[in-house]
Amino acid sequence: MKDFVIIGHKAMTSGDFSLNDLPGSAGRMDILCRCVNSALFLSHGMRRDVNVHLVLQGEPDPAKIVRFNGEKLKYLNPDERSSGSLIKKALEKDAIEYEIQSTPGVFIRRAGLEELLKEFNEAGRDIYYLREDGEDIREYSELNADAVFVLGDHMGVTEEEEEMIDKVAKCTLNIGPISLHSDHCMIIIHNELDRKEA
Amino acid sequence: MKDFVIIGHKAMTSGDFSLNDLPGSAGRMDILCRCVNSALFLSHGMRRDVNVHLVLQGEPDPAKIVRFNGEKLKYLNPDERSSGSLIKKALEKDAIEYEIQSTPGVFIRRAGLEELLKEFNEAGRDIYYLREDGEDIREYSELNADAVFVLGDHMGVTEEEEEMIDKVAKCTLNIGPISLHSDHCMIIIHNELDRKEA
Repeated sequence: MKDFVIIGHKAMTSGDFSLNDLPGSAGRMDILCRCVNSALFLSHGMRRDVNVHLVLQGEPDPAKIVRFNGEKLKYLNPDERSSGSLIKKALEKDAIEYEIQSTPGVFIRRAGLEELLKEFNEAGRDIYYLREDGEDIREYSELNADAVFVLGDHMGVTEEEEEMIDKVAKCTLNIGPISLHSDHCMIIIHNELDRKEA
Repeated sequence: MKDFVIIGHKAMTSGDFSLNDLPGSAGRMDILCRCVNSALFLSHGMRRDVNVHLVLQGEPDPAKIVRFNGEKLKYLNPDERSSGSLIKKALEKDAIEYEIQSTPGVFIRRAGLEELLKEFNEAGRDIYYLREDGEDIREYSELNADAVFVLGDHMGVTEEEEEMIDKVAKCTLNIGPISLHSDHCMIIIHNELDRKEA
């Protein structure tokens, strides 16, 4: 599996938001919705070997992690409202320490970035942090299809989060000469992996 | 300028659609909204050297072209509703043969793919057709920052359209080993151009 972790600093942690206002009252949930799309969609079908972990840190009940699992996923269309609606349904569940499945392939639990990174680290996974000053992903030869990629949102990554990531990251990678939105970075990561696997 | 042309085979040609149903009643307008995002957004700002031409071919009044001009554009946010709302406002204008500006940087006119391609061709622009069996964009050395890229939507490109494109296209390009949505292809095209320009 490839795993993408996206930190939503303001993303709401209850289902009490309107699908008509994902950028506003839902706390820039639109960013996370686009990341779900980038991680999972192919022209004809879905990337079944991908997990997307949305780390929701907004009010009223942080932190929670919503995971989209490409292997089991159903009912996802490419538009933002579609992923928004599945996130909303997940947030309507009472999140506990262990994952609950809200709809096929969508899971929610009460956890934060630190726990998630610890789990990946303990599982021996290669963790990559995406940042402008990282090594060019095209030049990096050790990338494999079992990698974990950590990305920020419109607010980037806080110093505290960066410390957590630096502790476990194998390498910091960069996708090109110009700084892009996280969902756009994910497309370039996928393209690089697709080419390596081809 | 870089120009992207996206054909929306079912995309509505009146403003009489709901922003809450871009994939459905608006005729997969969500695809075109995501293409606008891919073409124009940077992490901090907008690509000012880009035009996106949406060729709308759906009911009730085809064909119309909505152009987003990065240089003059205002009021665009990255979410689908935002671009959808600007497209809707453009479609509420009475489209004529010449471009009318509906909001800053958004223009509408009554025209179709054939006229648009003819204009680019007469202006001496290099036109590229994106298709799975094309030449790998990474291997193609002649790409310049003044190129025009033509992409289909979820229905691809019809035989008739392909004939029009083949007549004027300099080359058919491919973005990688796996077939992707048009908005994702555009990210990879931009990344390639960014790298060449860097």
